[in-house]
Amino acid sequence: MAHSAAITSAPSYSLTALSFTTTYSSPSAIFLAKPSWNPKMLHLRSRPPVRAAVSIEKETPEAHRPDTFLRESDDQAHSSSSSSSVRARFEKMIREAQDTVCTALEAADGGANFKEDVWSRPGGGGGISRVLQDGAVWEKAGVNVSVVYGVMPPEAYRAAKAAASPDEKPGPIPFFAAGISSVLHPKNPFAPTLHFNYRYFETDAPKDAPGAPRQWWFGGGTDLTPAYIFEEDVKHFHSTQKKACDKFNPDFYPRFKKWCDDYFYIKHRGERRGLGGIFFDDLNDYDQEMLLSFATECANSVIPAYIPIIERRKDLPFTEQQKAWQQLRRGRYVEFNLVYDRGTTFGLKTGGRIESILVSLPLTARWEYDHKPEEGSEEWKLLDACINPKEWV
Amino acid sequence: MAHSAAITSAPSYSLTALSFTTTYSSPSAIFLAKPSWNPKMLHLRSRPPVRAAVSIEKETPEAHRPDTFLRESDDQAHSSSSSSSVRARFEKMIREAQDTVCTALEAADGGANFKEDVWSRPGGGGGISRVLQDGAVWEKAGVNVSVVYGVMPPEAYRAAKAAASPDEKPGPIPFFAAGISSVLHPKNPFAPTLHFNYRYFETDAPKDAPGAPRQWWFGGGTDLTPAYIFEEDVKHFHSTQKKACDKFNPDFYPRFKKWCDDYFYIKHRGERRGLGGIFFDDLNDYDQEMLLSFATECANSVIPAYIPIIERRKDLPFTEQQKAWQQLRRGRYVEFNLVYDRGTTFGLKTGGRIESILVSLPLTARWEYDHKPEEGSEEWKLLDACINPKEWV
Repeated sequence: MAHSAAITSAPSYSLTALSFTTTYSSPSAIFLAKPSWNPKMLHLRSRPPVRAAVSIEKETPEAHRPDTFLRESDDQAHSSSSSSSVRARFEKMIREAQDTVCTALEAADGGANFKEDVWSRPGGGGGISRVLQDGAVWEKAGVNVSVVYGVMPPEAYRAAKAAASPDEKPGPIPFFAAGISSVLHPKNPFAPTLHFNYRYFETDAPKDAPGAPRQWWFGGGTDLTPAYIFEEDVKHFHSTQKKACDKFNPDFYPRFKKWCDDYFYIKHRGERRGLGGIFFDDLNDYDQEMLLSFATECANSVIPAYIPIIERRKDLPFTEQQKAWQQLRRGRYVEFNLVYDRGTTFGLKTGGRIESILVSLPLTARWEYDHKPEEGSEEWKLLDACINPKEWV
Repeated sequence: MAHSAAITSAPSYSLTALSFTTTYSSPSAIFLAKPSWNPKMLHLRSRPPVRAAVSIEKETPEAHRPDTFLRESDDQAHSSSSSSSVRARFEKMIREAQDTVCTALEAADGGANFKEDVWSRPGGGGGISRVLQDGAVWEKAGVNVSVVYGVMPPEAYRAAKAAASPDEKPGPIPFFAAGISSVLHPKNPFAPTLHFNYRYFETDAPKDAPGAPRQWWFGGGTDLTPAYIFEEDVKHFHSTQKKACDKFNPDFYPRFKKWCDDYFYIKHRGERRGLGGIFFDDLNDYDQEMLLSFATECANSVIPAYIPIIERRKDLPFTEQQKAWQQLRRGRYVEFNLVYDRGTTFGLKTGGRIESILVSLPLTARWEYDHKPEEGSEEWKLLDACINPKEWV
């Protein structure tokens, strides 16, 4: 009887928990504590632990897109000079990326247009959700951007900065977060699902601890989830990611490729949800300007990495069995997103915009009891690559 | 900025966490701690909290059903006298209920038979999973029984018994758990999904604290999840539950009806997954023999509560839109089970038999972006009843 499950499966802590979500959740998915978890389960009643959670204001629908979701004090978005704040330049980047990606997807789809929902929050921040549903190529495609202003309790800040004196008691720490996230589910079982998400996070200096440094991080990634393997597709996808990484640091691709394989792991299945790509989080140990350029390069690589694959596969004929296999893999996608993805699970519990968070789920999914693909079959090969991640480039 | 989300949504602690799962999970879903949660997120690094988790041995497939899954020392199953242990009589009851329910379902389906998987665990315990897939009436129907022997860490035991001296350090506490659980998903959108689960839990006296009392609990419930409301169906279902309850205690139905409405709540949607029924947990403040009889009565009420509804609805003609609405409601079922249901989520993370746990998921499910039924429509009426629970009897 091993008692170690709780320990081995716990991700190592960092302020990651405060950075953006990794799938298609609105930044409302920022969290500090899992609200449904009950510490009494683990602690003597006489010593209740510190608990802390971030929740955010309810969103208000807006009729028009504002030029920026930044607070006026932050707003240097109209100036495109490099002296603008990173906040402003990151927001500008993700909004341009949203436009570019949506335009390219509509052109490739040829059958449907994105529907847009804009919302804001009273204290600043907001977002733009764009969803294309029941297109010619994609059954569901969502591309969201959002900007969040929030406050995190001091316990979390202190926990993250263990070196600081435990006697200091800074007040709540304001934070800023912005991100783009997207999940694209095609109809054709030979055309892969794509997910990408790039996010930037900052804390302000605590008001009553003026010496405390401001923190910032970048996070994100792009990953591919096919139901069938076409080697040339997977190689093209990974080599596009590698090319984007190599422009900045030769360590990035191998490091972020492995991080991606580790993150999108469906533990109860012992398999990954797909064939990976790149993933990173908490990135702040490089030059900030370099990381902003890197995130921009990654976002700009989404369309060249993905659309050529879609063009090759979108019209291939398929059987009912092949469609059913795609639907089973979509079921795995649902399992990962609802059970493991931190952004989704915490977003659901902290009051994010539900429809934006759950647009990551496929239009349809399937669960068969005890389904096992025949050894050596194309379905088995995909499963094998999800169980044993491969080097593609 | 409210920091209270973590507190308000935390369920109150009791040894519930050690009792059985509430949906179709094998008893492997017994848990003490959510393994993926990381206490460093909430605590200063200098004071790591006590963590404790139950995990169980890997199951072994068996070619034949044993007469009992009890350890030999517990095995009084062959004697049906009332002097047999509650463990033995409970196992006998759930295995008989499994046979009765499966026979009735096969007869009503008329098109398919249950496939059986039997497994055991080296240290004692095991289970029988029965699944009927792609029948004439049900697209997926699972009826599982299982018996688990496990050990819980002393911290959990002490936490549950706050009155005891904190200086006492009993060793790990062996426990026993047995249960039946079932989810039945019909094809016809007018035929409702049914879930039921009845479970019994016991702890042994700790070996090195011989004075410590042994604990026991009962838990379970039966609930109905239609996509469309037929008042006569819902009234019949609830009045059958009430009749079973009223035989034992007039307080049971109102109390367990409300408990059911509270439990099957999809918090991020602000709606219940269905129209409820009864649900109870941690029940030990009544006579043990009475509760054993009550659980037996509840299990015996499943078929009379459900089959008459199925007979009336299984062959009704339906449109594609009505099927799509059923599929959207199935999506909600998936959301509840993967995000909230303690049994499922913890079972997935503690090494239960995955296929048994996830047989609760429907064969197919659907998620449309921002779907809202037209006010006053039949779909809207169902949604309204899920948002505002009604009294049906």
